[in-house]
Amino acid sequence: MKQAWSLLEVVAPAAGLLDITDRVVRWTSEQRLSSGLLTLFCRHTSASLLIQENAAPAARRDLQRYFDRLAPESVAYEHHEEGPDDMPAHLRSALTQTHLGIPLADGRLWLGTWQGIYLFEHRRRPPRREIALHLIGE
Amino acid sequence: MKQAWSLLEVVAPAAGLLDITDRVVRWTSEQRLSSGLLTLFCRHTSASLLIQENAAPAARRDLQRYFDRLAPESVAYEHHEEGPDDMPAHLRSALTQTHLGIPLADGRLWLGTWQGIYLFEHRRRPPRREIALHLIGE
Amino acid sequence: MKQAWSLLEVVAPAAGLLDITDRVVRWTSEQRLSSGLLTLFCRHTSASLLIQENAAPAARRDLQRYFDRLAPESVAYEHHEEGPDDMPAHLRSALTQTHLGIPLADGRLWLGTWQGIYLFEHRRRPPRREIALHLIGE
Repeated sequence: MKQAWSLLEVVAPAAGLLDITDRVVRWTSEQRLSSGLLTLFCRHTSASLLIQENAAPAARRDLQRYFDRLAPESVAYEHHEEGPDDMPAHLRSALTQTHLGIPLADGRLWLGTWQGIYLFEHRRRPPRREIALHLIGE
Repeated sequence: MKQAWSLLEVVAPAAGLLDITDRVVRWTSEQRLSSGLLTLFCRHTSASLLIQENAAPAARRDLQRYFDRLAPESVAYEHHEEGPDDMPAHLRSALTQTHLGIPLADGRLWLGTWQGIYLFEHRRRPPRREIALHLIGE
Repeated sequence: MKQAWSLLEVVAPAAGLLDITDRVVRWTSEQRLSSGLLTLFCRHTSASLLIQENAAPAARRDLQRYFDRLAPESVAYEHHEEGPDDMPAHLRSALTQTHLGIPLADGRLWLGTWQGIYLFEHRRRPPRREIALHLIGE
């Protein structure tokens, strides 16, 4: 049994879903494990992680518009130090995932055919984001 | 330390919560580990996983009605190739869980008394679903 | 490779976010692992777990007010045996996390600077809560 870990650094071009599947799959396969568990952990509270549809860009645009309505900027929040997108970013993070766990079998991540791994960036001016990767298995 | 993994195949009779606790508990106990970590991973983006109340069927009906309102079919989505329940299914998946992690101690999953493990099926005509199970421990 | 597990018992003073970061960090460092994966699992369906902003109390108040609106007590739920906060508690749990996974590297949990670990208590009269902790690594 062995472990591996790494820090993935990402800057999204804008708020919304950024596909990180290829980078995650590449790092995982470089560790040359046959079976195990991959954990992704987003080290922020204004960006999050999501497994979503990887084939239809329209589905990702609908998803972002949905969260724009569900946790809108137009509400008078008590916490607004960093601007109108500050508190909605925390709410959207709370409603999605800070971490993901994906099993590995036969040397491959066990993702479904239509599943992609996404950073869900919630800030209008995205800073650099760190996603911790951890793999355990053999 | 050892690992085990398997694919659980499920077809829900309709949209809503399908109790998979017994099947998951049975597979886990067959692996004869004393302690460890069980991961469940749903290989789809229009169905998800949820730990919920296992005693009151009314609570599960309320939960489904709630998600029917929270991510309704009545909105004009850009992505609608597979019908009006297509995009709401992705949204409801994003709002719940694609994966669950449950510790194992003293040879048993460490679920609370009132906790059941559910597949949350979001499509009106449920297809066959695959849930990856992964166990690591000793 | 080794494992450790424990049960963290918590009683929140009221509904809302209770910071459990210090207790979780202390228990984890006592296990003296250098690298690994920590899993937290909330053994209840009317309380949940959340990684959130640890610096601004206003952000946590906004978050609680948001969930008060998103899954309100004012709806006529079919399941209401334990009072008006019963079903909203299950809904808020479904919308947040029952479990969290946090990687450990260089002997420390890989939390971001602004991340705290919270029990999100949803009941007005909080009972004693059990959070299972599980650590695997070396």
